[in-house]
Amino acid sequence: MTTKHNHISISYCTQCRWLLRASWMAQELLTTFDDEITSLTLIPATGGLFEVRANDELLWSRKEQGRFPEITELKQLVRDIIAPDRSLGHSDKKPSSDNQS
Amino acid sequence: MTTKHNHISISYCTQCRWLLRASWMAQELLTTFDDEITSLTLIPATGGLFEVRANDELLWSRKEQGRFPEITELKQLVRDIIAPDRSLGHSDKKPSSDNQS
Repeated sequence: MTTKHNHISISYCTQCRWLLRASWMAQELLTTFDDEITSLTLIPATGGLFEVRANDELLWSRKEQGRFPEITELKQLVRDIIAPDRSLGHSDKKPSSDNQS
Repeated sequence: MTTKHNHISISYCTQCRWLLRASWMAQELLTTFDDEITSLTLIPATGGLFEVRANDELLWSRKEQGRFPEITELKQLVRDIIAPDRSLGHSDKKPSSDNQS
């Protein structure tokens, strides 16, 4: 276990029924960063909101980016904040057009 | 939306691989109490820990109770804290031996 506290949050629009998507991404992050994440909070919201934060830094906003993140790019963004020296293995590359995860 | 803030947390042992169980219960609670829960936090832990809290009140401890909660009884415990006047419908009864949820 690391001594640094890392907190992730995922805000999702309940009207859009994005709970399943949010909790899937939560499980992906908690599985990949099982040694780094101290806690991960799911936050019901409204109005088409889908935002991911790491240590209060906004990593993804669906309204700003105009789409959901690929799970690989979300992991890279989270990694850059909470475990910058860590490799994510075979998926750790620049996002490509084939959407491999 | 209610104005009162209700926070749920689920601490789970990663060594025991209880993430799937914890996130399933998280989704159940967020679906049932979509209007009452402000946030729900998943907390990786170790040593066989499985604890659920509502507004910092310990609702369930696997070590104390010696088992996991049925999802219906967990919802009743959460309801008693965050929405005491609310009925949970057909599942809102005393736990019976047939484990219906």
